[in-house]
Amino acid sequence: MSAPVRRTGGRSAAVLSSIRFAVEELVRERGAEKVTIPLVAERAGVNPTSVYRRWGDAATMLNDIATYRLDPARELPRTGDLRADLIAWCREIVEHYRKPINAALLRGGSASAGEQETECLRNRRAEGLAIAGEAGALDADDIIDGLVGPIVYRAIFLPWTLDEDLPVRLVDKVLAA
Amino acid sequence: MSAPVRRTGGRSAAVLSSIRFAVEELVRERGAEKVTIPLVAERAGVNPTSVYRRWGDAATMLNDIATYRLDPARELPRTGDLRADLIAWCREIVEHYRKPINAALLRGGSASAGEQETECLRNRRAEGLAIAGEAGALDADDIIDGLVGPIVYRAIFLPWTLDEDLPVRLVDKVLAA
Repeated sequence: MSAPVRRTGGRSAAVLSSIRFAVEELVRERGAEKVTIPLVAERAGVNPTSVYRRWGDAATMLNDIATYRLDPARELPRTGDLRADLIAWCREIVEHYRKPINAALLRGGSASAGEQETECLRNRRAEGLAIAGEAGALDADDIIDGLVGPIVYRAIFLPWTLDEDLPVRLVDKVLAA
Repeated sequence: MSAPVRRTGGRSAAVLSSIRFAVEELVRERGAEKVTIPLVAERAGVNPTSVYRRWGDAATMLNDIATYRLDPARELPRTGDLRADLIAWCREIVEHYRKPINAALLRGGSASAGEQETECLRNRRAEGLAIAGEAGALDADDIIDGLVGPIVYRAIFLPWTLDEDLPVRLVDKVLAA
């Protein structure tokens, strides 16, 4: 019996990073709907099996890679001014999806959504609640319906409307209601 | 020179109907992301060329077929009670996307969104404005951010939350803001 293979963080992090790079390049070149796991594996120089093992299918892979840049461990705006913090947080999300590659990945990933809540959505809701929930100002539905939902909807269907005023407009509406 | 071929509404309507039926069957069987134009043409018994000519690619086809049931020529709720009319209209959209086939088609179609406004979105916004715009109660952004966006976002990412209370909750929020 051989000892179990030890995976170093360094090596698997490098593999993951080359897969992400390959996905982003291929989405730019061909559009999200034409990106397949064999293509990604070839471009990244990894075995397709390890891509399948991690994500199962191309849509799940896109969904995951679409959102890793909004690192859930990043620092949130917490100045104590609820309105300003919410606006700053929405701005981050809007800025994220103003990048065509992120919007394309979101669209590609939405094809695989619907059977369970995505990690990304869970993270955004937790962040929104961390900013506004303690104060009792907003609940999870307010955050989904008033902030995350409209931003993501526009990113998918009306990306040219993700303008600078959007965060202020949404936050003022959700705080007024 | 031969006379141009005359297309009767009856024949092309029948072809369209068999294509729609084939798409819905295939989405149910395999999931939207595995539905291709050749598969649809074969199942519908039509020439793939005529499917390509009409929609160009599978995602555009799905996008179009996802929404034809919300016929823009149907009658809108217009009792004169703005709140009740908006709630009834949102209920129709929620009911539409509570059907798993419609939500699956929406997800498949969202992959092709983003370069121009979809017919479906334009129709929903026009309907919302027809109900609430004249009264000066809501503008196009209110309808997108307050009603259509959250419903479609939930249909894509959180379909199990499309519950009966959602229309009332959204309409009351948008009218309060």
